Amino acid sequence: MSHGKQFTLYTHVGGPNGWKVAFVLEELGLTYESIYLDFSKGEQKAPEHTKLNPNGRIPTLVDHQNNDFVVWESNAILLYLIEKYDKENKLGVSNENDKFTLLQWLFFQASGQGPYFGQAFWFLKYHSEKLPSAIERYQKETQRVYSVLEGVLSKQEWLVGGKPTIADIAFITWNRAAFNVILKDLPGVDIAKDYPSVYKWHKKLEERPAVAKVLGIQASVQNH
Amino acid sequence: MSHGKQFTLYTHVGGPNGWKVAFVLEELGLTYESIYLDFSKGEQKAPEHTKLNPNGRIPTLVDHQNNDFVVWESNAILLYLIEKYDKENKLGVSNENDKFTLLQWLFFQASGQGPYFGQAFWFLKYHSEKLPSAIERYQKETQRVYSVLEGVLSKQEWLVGGKPTIADIAFITWNRAAFNVILKDLPGVDIAKDYPSVYKWHKKLEERPAVAKVLGIQASVQNH
Repeated sequence: MSHGKQFTLYTHVGGPNGWKVAFVLEELGLTYESIYLDFSKGEQKAPEHTKLNPNGRIPTLVDHQNNDFVVWESNAILLYLIEKYDKENKLGVSNENDKFTLLQWLFFQASGQGPYFGQAFWFLKYHSEKLPSAIERYQKETQRVYSVLEGVLSKQEWLVGGKPTIADIAFITWNRAAFNVILKDLPGVDIAKDYPSVYKWHKKLEERPAVAKVLGIQASVQNH
Repeated sequence: MSHGKQFTLYTHVGGPNGWKVAFVLEELGLTYESIYLDFSKGEQKAPEHTKLNPNGRIPTLVDHQNNDFVVWESNAILLYLIEKYDKENKLGVSNENDKFTLLQWLFFQASGQGPYFGQAFWFLKYHSEKLPSAIERYQKETQRVYSVLEGVLSKQEWLVGGKPTIADIAFITWNRAAFNVILKDLPGVDIAKDYPSVYKWHKKLEERPAVAKVLGIQASVQNH
């Protein structure tokens, strides 16, 4: 890589998981070059990418400062970044038990929020036929995830350690999909009213300068 | 808890994720009492359980040797167990880069295998109506996950570090669901023939004494 930056991030202009990594790279002041793969050309499944990431999905991170070490799966990437390059725990936690609570929330995001919100999005936007009972299943599951988060965030400001961490940041992009698409026009649902603590938590996260900067970049590349 | 064992594991007789934790507790020779929650009575969503695990799902682990510390999300539990109680790295890895590769595969299991195999199972077995295009979507996704794993396991025996770890063990229970249900009667699919390295890998894992013992316990409690 001749771009001279520490990392190469294989990512996509849409899709939530690449932007999650960009938030954390930006938060930590790390230098990275984003390569936006063109899914319409199948670039994510082309050998140039699958030799790095056999899953053929994004994001994929290459760390040129660590002998071009490759890591994929967005939440594994976030953990890699904070454990190696966040020695002051700006986005991590220091208490040993808290480290496992942080992992717990990252797995809840990866196995609960991401897939269910993702399936809701799929059946609303991309599936070959309209399946109301499938859409309903995943919109309900989205609300269930928010009930769980509301129960926790109504009693504490952040998910773990009394401070914002990668566990909170990991939820931002799929929250935006829920707010803007999945639950947007669902009769009887008003996220700000029904899940006020989730709503406030998300808005605080979006207002972080590094997150706002990356959301600006996202808006700009999506308009190209 | 008066059972005198180190851990209490809130789990379920069916469902894949609790058994995953039992495999690792058994592998490490740790003592635990399993409490099988009755989902038909909603015990997983009753206050006695949700005060420990606000997600209202299983598994939930309580470590009585660590001041009753609670951790949920099965893969976060596996990481807790090896990082605290597997100092000889029986099921972990010691190389620093490998630790992140292990996390990567755990997240692939949690966000790739688990949810997609789980949705296949749902639409095959439990959904309110028969939706062939939804079933097809998730059976195809199950095959896609196996193509990814086959590509890797045809070149190496284990997912990370040249040895069996929690990253491999995490896949066992959903593999069993794929072999026995999801892909079982799908025309033109023969797991042992189509994904020979995945098949061998899974069989080796099932033959581990600790895994075989827990599978025996599972068969016994499911028959009650």
